[in-house]
Amino acid sequence: MFVQAQVLYSFTAEPGNNELSVQEGETLTLLNQSVGGGWIEAQNSRGQTGLVPEDYIQVRGQCSIDDDEWDDESDDGKSTGGYTWSQSEEGGGTMQRGTVWLYPQTQLDCVVADPKKGTKMYGLKSYIEYQITPNSTNRPVNHRYKHFDWLYERLMEKFGCAFPIPCLPDKQVTGRFEDEFIKMRMERLQGWMSRLCRHPVVANSEVFQLFLTYTDEKDWKIGKRKAEKDETVGVMVFTTMDPEIRELDPTEVEQKCETFSRFTRSMDDRVKDLLSVGHLHWKRCTGPLQKEYQRIGKAFQNLSSVFNTSGYQGEATLTEALTATGKTYEEIAEICAGQPKKDLHFLMETNSEYKGLLGCFPDIIGVHKAAIEKVKEADRLVAMNKIGPQDKHTMAKNLSTMSYALQAEMNHFHSNRIYDYNRVMQLYLQEQVQFYETVSSLYLHLHISATN
Amino acid sequence: MFVQAQVLYSFTAEPGNNELSVQEGETLTLLNQSVGGGWIEAQNSRGQTGLVPEDYIQVRGQCSIDDDEWDDESDDGKSTGGYTWSQSEEGGGTMQRGTVWLYPQTQLDCVVADPKKGTKMYGLKSYIEYQITPNSTNRPVNHRYKHFDWLYERLMEKFGCAFPIPCLPDKQVTGRFEDEFIKMRMERLQGWMSRLCRHPVVANSEVFQLFLTYTDEKDWKIGKRKAEKDETVGVMVFTTMDPEIRELDPTEVEQKCETFSRFTRSMDDRVKDLLSVGHLHWKRCTGPLQKEYQRIGKAFQNLSSVFNTSGYQGEATLTEALTATGKTYEEIAEICAGQPKKDLHFLMETNSEYKGLLGCFPDIIGVHKAAIEKVKEADRLVAMNKIGPQDKHTMAKNLSTMSYALQAEMNHFHSNRIYDYNRVMQLYLQEQVQFYETVSSLYLHLHISATN
Repeated sequence: MFVQAQVLYSFTAEPGNNELSVQEGETLTLLNQSVGGGWIEAQNSRGQTGLVPEDYIQVRGQCSIDDDEWDDESDDGKSTGGYTWSQSEEGGGTMQRGTVWLYPQTQLDCVVADPKKGTKMYGLKSYIEYQITPNSTNRPVNHRYKHFDWLYERLMEKFGCAFPIPCLPDKQVTGRFEDEFIKMRMERLQGWMSRLCRHPVVANSEVFQLFLTYTDEKDWKIGKRKAEKDETVGVMVFTTMDPEIRELDPTEVEQKCETFSRFTRSMDDRVKDLLSVGHLHWKRCTGPLQKEYQRIGKAFQNLSSVFNTSGYQGEATLTEALTATGKTYEEIAEICAGQPKKDLHFLMETNSEYKGLLGCFPDIIGVHKAAIEKVKEADRLVAMNKIGPQDKHTMAKNLSTMSYALQAEMNHFHSNRIYDYNRVMQLYLQEQVQFYETVSSLYLHLHISATN
Repeated sequence: MFVQAQVLYSFTAEPGNNELSVQEGETLTLLNQSVGGGWIEAQNSRGQTGLVPEDYIQVRGQCSIDDDEWDDESDDGKSTGGYTWSQSEEGGGTMQRGTVWLYPQTQLDCVVADPKKGTKMYGLKSYIEYQITPNSTNRPVNHRYKHFDWLYERLMEKFGCAFPIPCLPDKQVTGRFEDEFIKMRMERLQGWMSRLCRHPVVANSEVFQLFLTYTDEKDWKIGKRKAEKDETVGVMVFTTMDPEIRELDPTEVEQKCETFSRFTRSMDDRVKDLLSVGHLHWKRCTGPLQKEYQRIGKAFQNLSSVFNTSGYQGEATLTEALTATGKTYEEIAEICAGQPKKDLHFLMETNSEYKGLLGCFPDIIGVHKAAIEKVKEADRLVAMNKIGPQDKHTMAKNLSTMSYALQAEMNHFHSNRIYDYNRVMQLYLQEQVQFYETVSSLYLHLHISATN
């Protein structure tokens, strides 16, 4: 039933990520090859299960087509500094991914940690500096929020027409140095960086590499100036790509574009729905519901206090039960108010990230639609001798390239989406089970002591 | 550790009342002698536990003082048609009940059942008739709501100065014949009758006995007319009582009265608190909370639907998890909305009953305070020769009787209160455990299917 696979490269699991550490040469049983995001759920010989990067393993008795293509093309991709992708034909009974980005053999990642307060202008201005350590160099670099913001601006400029660039966590002016806020911002910057690291084109870009691996202040300043002068930005980014595969017909492009547009718009609506009802529920749990449980708790305890003044015999069992019930309600109030931070938090964070990503698609789709219109009009312009047939051909080819890029991007988006939502749902359900079990055990304990 | 007791009379448990059927001669282990309300928690030789009327059993190797007194005086009580009580001295390290009503050996109870629609005036007017079967005759009688109302008026007139007469369930004009309403009214009439049956003075009264045991229409009409002409009503009811024990000093009476007043006022406040927060919680569970869970459920399912349109491989696990989570939320919405009927309902019913009873105490206390003032003024009136010393003595004796009656009534109230609240809290906690366990098992099941 289950497929066996051999580990090609050792991999160390990141704690809390549901990953599985594996050793080169080890044999694994593959439990779920469709978790997406480049991950496979596997079990080792000791019965431990977890996620393993799919390109770290080799399925027994079969050779992955993707692996072959990556092996063939990865050198090209690196040497030219351009963008490469792999292509598998669509069709047949099973769904195929179509065009995908060429992913590196080792995925870039980084750790954002150790926020430190720094000062400048003789202590007049203070700021927080974060330490970022990429797995490629294992050498930490320091950056302030405004540097992240600078990177965001550069990436938007350069790739905004082609890929959704995740929004930076919100700026916040008041209480900027409160521990809670710094912790939250760090968590979000980590999420932001990890997402960018996962994008093969962004991760490989000069500006992103500069941000992660600059050696000293001088290196950083020179790199910054160079990045700010980069002219391969906006739609020009497509000129650096050459899929070298069948050119797409504008009608085909338009149809694909429409499909992507429909999906991202629908998902955007649904994500906003979930965020809005989630916010409402969060507020109810930490507001009226907590207060109501507290009030119920107080009401039981107050009744118990009055009963205690009756001077009547045989009151103890009842007043103890009432007091214990009251205290249980007060505990429930606290558990209930603390719950959103445990479960809703990650669900909301993930959906907020996706809301940000989805908000980028209308512009990307817009750029595509404009290019489609331009190619459609080209026939008329050729007839009027305003442009030559070669110009028209270049426009169509550019459009085809854009469409392949969007396809690869959508595949990247879907794969990440499935991975992210799988993770967040597992966490969410775990915490929900935990919540109801905790409360039910509180009651069970109470009920046992009340009846015994 | 536990006391053994012998069953004096066989007793058949009423289903759903946490009672234990016992056979004459059987030996029981007493688990809790202080549940109150004339009940004892006991275990039989087969390990079954439940409540048994305390006057149905005889504790081994000891003879209850109360039993002796009841045996001595019960004949008197019955022959004179007046009211008798038992008295145990207060003091010592343990709390004593003081004066208590003399309870009959077999407690009266009745079953209200079988509501039937009847018509009169050739079908122009219709009404609901309930069947009431007392355990004393085991012969059913029929009564309409207006007969219950008539009984309530009589009891208020006759005993309203001395005991709290529970309020009748509310009249409701619209939808009077809806099944739900009739069921609810019957349940409340049952509660009302059971409470009156438990009161030894009320249960033994002519008017109450007439209501339960009239033989035919003629008997009922004659009895009704007689009851309406009863002159031993209001404060006159105290003249039928003669405790024949130490006469109480007015200061002592005043002090006891103040204690009772303080307790009933405080309990009234607390009961109203609990009712108000309970109503609020009920509304939240069946209103905003249900809707919110439904909305969360829909949001998850809608997200799942969009994901299903992606055409991307490896989507199934995630969309199944999202759909299942959404459906679980919809189930939680229903469970949450149905929960108040299962747990809050009985808590609210009991507290509503007590709110009604507690509302009677200010009048009862008022009657006592007026009598105290009268006795206090008597010295002045004697000095002024407006009344004779004998009159003053009668007034003081009457006040003493009233005070003993109030003591007995308060003991009756406390004993019933402890019994009622013990029962309702047990039920409440059981249902709460059930609720959280149900939801947690829903989630657990979901979580298992999502991770496997």
